[in-house]
Amino acid sequence: MLRVFICGGSGYTGSELLRILANHEEVEIVGVTSEKSAGMSVKELFPAFHIYKTLKFENLNIENIKDRAHVYFLALPHGKSQQVAASLLEAGKKVIDLSADYRIKDAIIYEKWYKLSHSYPHLLKEAVYGLPEIYREKIKEANLIANPGCYPTSVILPLYPFLKRDLIIPDTIVIDSKSGTSGAGRKAEVTLSYCEVNEDFRAYNIAKHRHTPEIEQELSYAYGREITIEFTTHLLPVNRGILSTIYGKLNKKITTKQAIEILKEAYENEPFIKIMSGGEVPAIKYVKGTNYCYIGAIVNERTGRLILISAIDNLVKGASGQAVQNMNIMFGIDETKALRSLALMP
Amino acid sequence: MLRVFICGGSGYTGSELLRILANHEEVEIVGVTSEKSAGMSVKELFPAFHIYKTLKFENLNIENIKDRAHVYFLALPHGKSQQVAASLLEAGKKVIDLSADYRIKDAIIYEKWYKLSHSYPHLLKEAVYGLPEIYREKIKEANLIANPGCYPTSVILPLYPFLKRDLIIPDTIVIDSKSGTSGAGRKAEVTLSYCEVNEDFRAYNIAKHRHTPEIEQELSYAYGREITIEFTTHLLPVNRGILSTIYGKLNKKITTKQAIEILKEAYENEPFIKIMSGGEVPAIKYVKGTNYCYIGAIVNERTGRLILISAIDNLVKGASGQAVQNMNIMFGIDETKALRSLALMP
Amino acid sequence: MLRVFICGGSGYTGSELLRILANHEEVEIVGVTSEKSAGMSVKELFPAFHIYKTLKFENLNIENIKDRAHVYFLALPHGKSQQVAASLLEAGKKVIDLSADYRIKDAIIYEKWYKLSHSYPHLLKEAVYGLPEIYREKIKEANLIANPGCYPTSVILPLYPFLKRDLIIPDTIVIDSKSGTSGAGRKAEVTLSYCEVNEDFRAYNIAKHRHTPEIEQELSYAYGREITIEFTTHLLPVNRGILSTIYGKLNKKITTKQAIEILKEAYENEPFIKIMSGGEVPAIKYVKGTNYCYIGAIVNERTGRLILISAIDNLVKGASGQAVQNMNIMFGIDETKALRSLALMP
Amino acid sequence: MLRVFICGGSGYTGSELLRILANHEEVEIVGVTSEKSAGMSVKELFPAFHIYKTLKFENLNIENIKDRAHVYFLALPHGKSQQVAASLLEAGKKVIDLSADYRIKDAIIYEKWYKLSHSYPHLLKEAVYGLPEIYREKIKEANLIANPGCYPTSVILPLYPFLKRDLIIPDTIVIDSKSGTSGAGRKAEVTLSYCEVNEDFRAYNIAKHRHTPEIEQELSYAYGREITIEFTTHLLPVNRGILSTIYGKLNKKITTKQAIEILKEAYENEPFIKIMSGGEVPAIKYVKGTNYCYIGAIVNERTGRLILISAIDNLVKGASGQAVQNMNIMFGIDETKALRSLALMP
Repeated sequence: MLRVFICGGSGYTGSELLRILANHEEVEIVGVTSEKSAGMSVKELFPAFHIYKTLKFENLNIENIKDRAHVYFLALPHGKSQQVAASLLEAGKKVIDLSADYRIKDAIIYEKWYKLSHSYPHLLKEAVYGLPEIYREKIKEANLIANPGCYPTSVILPLYPFLKRDLIIPDTIVIDSKSGTSGAGRKAEVTLSYCEVNEDFRAYNIAKHRHTPEIEQELSYAYGREITIEFTTHLLPVNRGILSTIYGKLNKKITTKQAIEILKEAYENEPFIKIMSGGEVPAIKYVKGTNYCYIGAIVNERTGRLILISAIDNLVKGASGQAVQNMNIMFGIDETKALRSLALMP
Repeated sequence: MLRVFICGGSGYTGSELLRILANHEEVEIVGVTSEKSAGMSVKELFPAFHIYKTLKFENLNIENIKDRAHVYFLALPHGKSQQVAASLLEAGKKVIDLSADYRIKDAIIYEKWYKLSHSYPHLLKEAVYGLPEIYREKIKEANLIANPGCYPTSVILPLYPFLKRDLIIPDTIVIDSKSGTSGAGRKAEVTLSYCEVNEDFRAYNIAKHRHTPEIEQELSYAYGREITIEFTTHLLPVNRGILSTIYGKLNKKITTKQAIEILKEAYENEPFIKIMSGGEVPAIKYVKGTNYCYIGAIVNERTGRLILISAIDNLVKGASGQAVQNMNIMFGIDETKALRSLALMP
Repeated sequence: MLRVFICGGSGYTGSELLRILANHEEVEIVGVTSEKSAGMSVKELFPAFHIYKTLKFENLNIENIKDRAHVYFLALPHGKSQQVAASLLEAGKKVIDLSADYRIKDAIIYEKWYKLSHSYPHLLKEAVYGLPEIYREKIKEANLIANPGCYPTSVILPLYPFLKRDLIIPDTIVIDSKSGTSGAGRKAEVTLSYCEVNEDFRAYNIAKHRHTPEIEQELSYAYGREITIEFTTHLLPVNRGILSTIYGKLNKKITTKQAIEILKEAYENEPFIKIMSGGEVPAIKYVKGTNYCYIGAIVNERTGRLILISAIDNLVKGASGQAVQNMNIMFGIDETKALRSLALMP
Repeated sequence: MLRVFICGGSGYTGSELLRILANHEEVEIVGVTSEKSAGMSVKELFPAFHIYKTLKFENLNIENIKDRAHVYFLALPHGKSQQVAASLLEAGKKVIDLSADYRIKDAIIYEKWYKLSHSYPHLLKEAVYGLPEIYREKIKEANLIANPGCYPTSVILPLYPFLKRDLIIPDTIVIDSKSGTSGAGRKAEVTLSYCEVNEDFRAYNIAKHRHTPEIEQELSYAYGREITIEFTTHLLPVNRGILSTIYGKLNKKITTKQAIEILKEAYENEPFIKIMSGGEVPAIKYVKGTNYCYIGAIVNERTGRLILISAIDNLVKGASGQAVQNMNIMFGIDETKALRSLALMP
């Protein structure tokens, strides 16, 4: 049995780890922390998680936790993961960090976008960006996984094959993303209250969303040169799901069919990528509660643009599901273990 | 022009007063307070309310406000209205209190259910319960209106005519009410956040909801003797609206048609009561954004019970609309002024 | 491998069987029918169900299907299951009928409430009402399972132990149930369209819902004498879930704690019943996507009533999950197989 | 009193006309048609519209209706308005057509995108595109108004001033629009049913939405040369509202502040256009139930793009409200009559 510890279990990515791992037969959750709910039992805070009969939230104290597990998931606020990850690595443990702290390779860029200083820049080199479809081999050997952001996962996967083949003019890329409200976290804020979000829709953080440099880093890596993108995010009145609509001018004429072929070829052996056929496009309902990423492609011949649409569940493939996928890869477990559920529909 | 002042304008009942009065041609809003948003302009906090070009939230200071208006709406938390109302009455002003502070005639009962002491029990006698369909004549002369609670409005209106005629066995009354989330107020709480309320439904405050004694007081008044009711509330994943399903064993056999006739007769001249015909029952969508109360009645011949169903908008007929209706009555204005909108549908 | 056939796979209970069985390792789905979608592949109609790479909807033709499987799920409209079940039974097959056709033991009552004649009244005796918590032993031997209705499941489970112990006065039982919209089926109707249901809430089929006789039959069985109940249903703007609020006058004084103890004792070994402690009550969010039934109990000392609240997912414990649970029992498979998921939360 | 007739009153744009005109003191609705609901009273189909005590839906028969009103609103399906408008014009009446039939000046383009032939191409010249902010003077004299589409209204208003000043490179314009579900009409379709739309989000009609040529026509008119745009639409799980996110590369460097100034200057006297200050952006909640269009502008200095965001209520400014605004202009009534409501919030 793999012993697993969750740092930060009372937010949505933490609770999603509890949900997913509840049915992972090769894993035992040995501990979970929560600053706000320390002392409370898991099933008291989350009556839906009755399966955890004795597990209690505790305080995050490295000394108390560092000898208890093989792998530590950090579902902590940005900035807070830095030190926890460093300490656990020093104790010889494997760490999967769901925060942004180790995603951006360049500490200066991290500091600029997150308004936080980085105290462990040397670990940035060691950290592996946990997108298995691109970095699977590195993930197998990694001690520190920087689990990708939800939006970046939804954007990098569809764009990657086209940028790698130099089919899109980078300067023309416009990414219009829409996320379910769980992406904002489990928080007490008037702006996130039911009556404010329900029946509303709006854009936020325009021209300054912090996932921008993460997307640019990975797309630049695919393209071989630095890329600057337009990236806008919106708040959807649904609990879960991200749909990204991505536009780019084609470098050379291809058809919708060819675009789909490129995607199918790129991801043919990937267990969690589903390419829509025949100009169909994905919907959030296809992925709710699942670790799948659905991608559709359409070439608009009037405008010469490729339109890519992707759908993921922001809490699963966009966070905790991908984290479990990474754990499976790191420990030689079947990559799809505990991640095979189909979408809850309707 | 009637000069109006709103104490507590940043919650949902306060903002609803701003919305409704925006189109009241005989009224001018001369001031509005908010503890949290003092100094901010109304249209900054509520960009939808662009019509208030210069109005700013200010602190609630009796000395500063008591000479500025003819009538004061108190959209303040329970307990806080007590003194504000008393001070404004002393200054010779008319007060419409949307809190529960002056609804319960018996200070001991108020204190028991609200866990608050009452410092102005002598004013309880003076206060008029602002349900125009029952107390219109008293409202005309009143200086202090205790504006009814949302649930009580939805319950008293359908039951009143039947209890008055002694047609229902009081001991058998079961009231199962469901309210939209705005009934919980504009608050920063995890339990009221979008992801928690959306796709959920639950009962709350079972056997101890504070609207219970208010309902019992008015129904007892109708019946002529003391009544104890069963009253359960639920949280609906909609922004607005209350639907109450009310059950009671009939004292004597009547038909559905007769039950409807009783309602029609009781409310035939009421501008805001609509009785459904032919066994039809109301829906929240018929009243969203309006001051109407729709009522339906069905007699279940198998069980000998009368089933009454009522629908109101909790923020309008259940709060701010009824408050404006009371204001219109108090100042001799057409009772339906600013309250004639039909439901926003869909 | 158990070979399974689904008659009626394009409605919500049919698609839910496809979803649940996708992860049942001891089962193979060998065929699925759909009148409207015959010829279409499953993943074409439901892109979320990509796992069914070759399965196609076919027409329902007994001759073609009767030799292909060990067990047949009938997710057909009421009235239509009658003959299909009879034919399959004659062919020596096991049948789990999700319609109401074999639930009511008395054909006259069935005909009265469903406005359909019953052509196989002799099979009504053979059919076992598929509520494992009550009829597990009979289910093990059954060839024909009448899978319970969604509302009845949510009502019978909480009331059963109290009626069995004669603690509630039957005549005072009022059941106020609220169901998510998937309970109405996958249909093209204006009244079920998004804009009509969203932000609305209403009661329907008052005093005449067809689940009434089913509930009365089982409660009468528990009580030992005939019971008549008050039962009202409402349409909730959520996809899934039923919450039933149930009221009954107590025959003798018991406390909330005692009421909870009675439930815990009755269901202590049941894998899918969860009793809330300490006067807590369940919410739909605890059961979404799961086969669990959560039950809470509160005694209102002011009124002498017991208030029971139950929550299930109408498509899982209220339909397809319970059907799979029955299948597991019938074939000696671990009863919880494919049914262990925790609620998708948020 | 202006006598008004509504052709097609049972869909959402028709019912919205009934809602808005209910409080228009200078208007009397003398008749309303509906193919499906002919013979039914308005308040029977729409219990919320109790104000129409005697109005009944009738069949659309030109001979019967042509002498009864001064102005006719056509809320009919595309293709069907053509002849009705022509006949009423011939009878000397004023017509406001909410369909697309007279919006596209070039019949060939209409036929290509709508797959319908146009039988009255000569009337296309006479028709005035009913966007008051651009064509107010022409509307005053018009007999036939082609009331703009919902998406085009949300797109043309923000882009117009920038294209007129040649500040955007037309070829780089990407319009990503999201509409509430009422935009799809009041229809019995599984894909529009509650369970399918709720908790979902998807793009539709990619690269082929029929509002594309309408947008291009008006933007080309502003720009002075032909423009081809990228336009993608999405279905939002809300009842009402359109939010359009519009991207374009700037021709010359301007700041966010300057962009806002350009909008403020262009629309300073417009009663229904509200420009957000200081880089704020609009939300659907600001406009729900209103005739307002809110616009925000942000310049992304990293990418050299102007980002415009607009919000309207698709049924009001995007359809029936704008139609009433046009009627007010045509008949010399105060342009804001019956259109002054603030957003229903929350």
